[in-house]
Amino acid sequence: MKKQQNILIIGAGLCGSLLALRLGQRGYNVSVYEMRPDLRKVDISAGRSINLAFSDRGNKAMKLVGIEEKVKALCIPMNGRMIHDKEGHTFLSNYSGRDHEYINSVSRGGLNALLLDEAEKHENVSIYFNKKCKSVNFKKTTALFKDYETKSEFVEDADVIIATDGAGSAMRKSYYLAKKFLFSFSQDYLTHGYKELSILPTKTGDYKTYKNALHIWPRGSFMLIALPNLDGSFTVTLFLSYDEGVYNFNNLTTPEIVSEFFQKEFPDALSLMPNLIEDFFKNPTAPLGTVKCSPWHYKGNTLLMGDSAHAIVPFYGQGMNASFEDVVEFDAILDQNSGNWEAVFKAYEATRKKDTDAIADLAIDNFHEMKDHVANPIFQEKRKLEMALEQNFPNAYSSKYSLVTFHENIGYHEAMTRGRAQDKAILNMIADKSIPTSDMTKEELKVILKSVQQETNNILEDDRIAGLKQ
Amino acid sequence: MKKQQNILIIGAGLCGSLLALRLGQRGYNVSVYEMRPDLRKVDISAGRSINLAFSDRGNKAMKLVGIEEKVKALCIPMNGRMIHDKEGHTFLSNYSGRDHEYINSVSRGGLNALLLDEAEKHENVSIYFNKKCKSVNFKKTTALFKDYETKSEFVEDADVIIATDGAGSAMRKSYYLAKKFLFSFSQDYLTHGYKELSILPTKTGDYKTYKNALHIWPRGSFMLIALPNLDGSFTVTLFLSYDEGVYNFNNLTTPEIVSEFFQKEFPDALSLMPNLIEDFFKNPTAPLGTVKCSPWHYKGNTLLMGDSAHAIVPFYGQGMNASFEDVVEFDAILDQNSGNWEAVFKAYEATRKKDTDAIADLAIDNFHEMKDHVANPIFQEKRKLEMALEQNFPNAYSSKYSLVTFHENIGYHEAMTRGRAQDKAILNMIADKSIPTSDMTKEELKVILKSVQQETNNILEDDRIAGLKQ
Repeated sequence: MKKQQNILIIGAGLCGSLLALRLGQRGYNVSVYEMRPDLRKVDISAGRSINLAFSDRGNKAMKLVGIEEKVKALCIPMNGRMIHDKEGHTFLSNYSGRDHEYINSVSRGGLNALLLDEAEKHENVSIYFNKKCKSVNFKKTTALFKDYETKSEFVEDADVIIATDGAGSAMRKSYYLAKKFLFSFSQDYLTHGYKELSILPTKTGDYKTYKNALHIWPRGSFMLIALPNLDGSFTVTLFLSYDEGVYNFNNLTTPEIVSEFFQKEFPDALSLMPNLIEDFFKNPTAPLGTVKCSPWHYKGNTLLMGDSAHAIVPFYGQGMNASFEDVVEFDAILDQNSGNWEAVFKAYEATRKKDTDAIADLAIDNFHEMKDHVANPIFQEKRKLEMALEQNFPNAYSSKYSLVTFHENIGYHEAMTRGRAQDKAILNMIADKSIPTSDMTKEELKVILKSVQQETNNILEDDRIAGLKQ
Repeated sequence: MKKQQNILIIGAGLCGSLLALRLGQRGYNVSVYEMRPDLRKVDISAGRSINLAFSDRGNKAMKLVGIEEKVKALCIPMNGRMIHDKEGHTFLSNYSGRDHEYINSVSRGGLNALLLDEAEKHENVSIYFNKKCKSVNFKKTTALFKDYETKSEFVEDADVIIATDGAGSAMRKSYYLAKKFLFSFSQDYLTHGYKELSILPTKTGDYKTYKNALHIWPRGSFMLIALPNLDGSFTVTLFLSYDEGVYNFNNLTTPEIVSEFFQKEFPDALSLMPNLIEDFFKNPTAPLGTVKCSPWHYKGNTLLMGDSAHAIVPFYGQGMNASFEDVVEFDAILDQNSGNWEAVFKAYEATRKKDTDAIADLAIDNFHEMKDHVANPIFQEKRKLEMALEQNFPNAYSSKYSLVTFHENIGYHEAMTRGRAQDKAILNMIADKSIPTSDMTKEELKVILKSVQQETNNILEDDRIAGLKQ
């Protein structure tokens, strides 16, 4: 492939700006068109999550482009889940039994700005703002844009178009509507929506509650979570059904009923949120959707990447990490120098799609885990045992959460398959009372580890035979 | 609900005409609009499967509307799968160990004509042909039609609109495009397509091969099947990848290569098909898609039913049966007289969707079973054992196939869950060589039955615990 080829990227969000940076580093001529204004000049946070979970798969991408240290400065480590019950009691459940494994809260805007700055350092990368993509002609490799400033429309062509324009992707819509090839597509909404709220800093700029955790108020069919920001505030998110249950988004229509709901369900959070009512009625309620599709590419002309190809719900904290990992995987395929773009796109989808499908499913699982299971005694026993196994046998055991979050050299699909089998093994061993779950010596733990490994392998083997796969 | 309400049905295919008949019997004023000409007057078979598998769930609906005997006259019983290997050897694998359990090949056109005739016997039912629905305004409960004869467009309103307009439903498209509510939707295509061919009768009008079976030529990644017609012919269908493998639809472009492919892979079928080349290049290649969506209804105004709500691939022979069962289920909800249409539609979707989701997934499973597993020794041992269990313990054992096909009083979802667990139990017992699979006495079989039941229950219980469902 000639290096001087022109690549057009639609969307300068987290994925698009990272991709522009990486392709710029590789020497391509890169033009990026973004529909929003430049977030380094204008505050455009409204309607999108303010902070995000950043972990090892995302960091692998930062290492690839050489900005790991700069990103670290934007991060607040979260070592575990701080679980709040209705009485205001809290308990911390670590994400890993290994001290060096934790996730981070990172500012979306701060990280995006850094990626844009780094990309623009390359003179072969140009970024244009306020240009909305309306459609893509994937047969001609051209894209139609509307310029929000001049109100005019214009067409750009390129050797290759890569759409990183998010869950509502214009190019994906063009694939769907054109009916020029068989396009498998799904959009699946949860019956729950979400609304962002906030815990502001104290007057002296301090955090009002424990900084280094992801706070969860699990209530079975709904939940509240909070992630810290660098300025001492927390971004709080309420996940709640639109129309089911005693309280839901459709009936939380007055300040009185919202206060009553929080007083009853989240009294300790409410005491930190004098601004609740204002936030609640100012901020939008947004849906939670999963998007899957295939193929991601049209021949060697166009490719979907990031959320445009695989939007997921936020409950595993992997949305941004998965999109960053897309760029790492794509880069590895480019290294293989497959000779032409169609071969590159085909190889990329063939290796990547099983993994993005898996994280989509895992994220749905984690919705139920976070709002419900974390408060379930058998689940808590499992986590306690897994912490002990990870602490005592750091090289021999990793929980599903660790496999997904901290093992960036294992794909999501393998992490899911192995992690689910482990969960099933341990939950059944606990339910059968075939293993103790507290006060174990290291020797006893070693026996348990062996049983868990053996039972996990049995489960995988039984599934393999049932699937008649050789 | 007043009985004199006006119900508008979009589509007079198998589901729509049955629904019109049943709602006519219940006393509603029913108007049906169909885009095709009246199939009783014009031959419009092109592009749709000529015969279909008809089994107990479908028959339950025929009993409900009182035409079971009339339908029987259109049916050819198929007692099992006749499997053809490459050397032309055949072996018959029964669908059930119980003699009274078999499926039928039925003519789509003949059955549809019967349903239309029966529906039109009710003076409160009117059916209009050549009227294509272009869109539905679900807020106003109106539908826009184009009259193919006069070329004019017109709007019809009704108290309720039910769309039975198939996999390409216009109303479902209106749900999707209007973006007035969160509409979960998926269309998933297999990488395989299909093409209909035929084995014509002998000169004396006889069947050229065994009449009472569903013939399969399984070849791992592709297959040929054949179902008998009343006129002595068989409708043959080739299921093949569009672009993978040595031979695929994209490269079968000349008579020579098509003949070569059949000569190599299906020599015994080819000898019965002197008309192969003509059929192959005359008939279209069509995609195989699964459609799921939710919600099926908009308030109490409109409802999707049959393929418009849940189109499935044909491999379980359940597409028509599932749509007929929709009508039975809907009728049962109407019996409960929930008081208003919104309650009826909501209750219907709440009970029905898990079952139509299940048959969609089962149909995909069966694609792999038919083209591949039926030729696998461990799978064949399982079927042999299951036949023996069904023959010897007809009240105590039913295979997954039997549960899905012959147990119309069990929902698809329950049949899937129990059937998959049984399959897993038996396949693993065979793989572990923990049970004999031939030359068993009835006493030995009884012991095996108990083990299978125990192991099935263990599998279901382990899954329940792993899902943390109480």
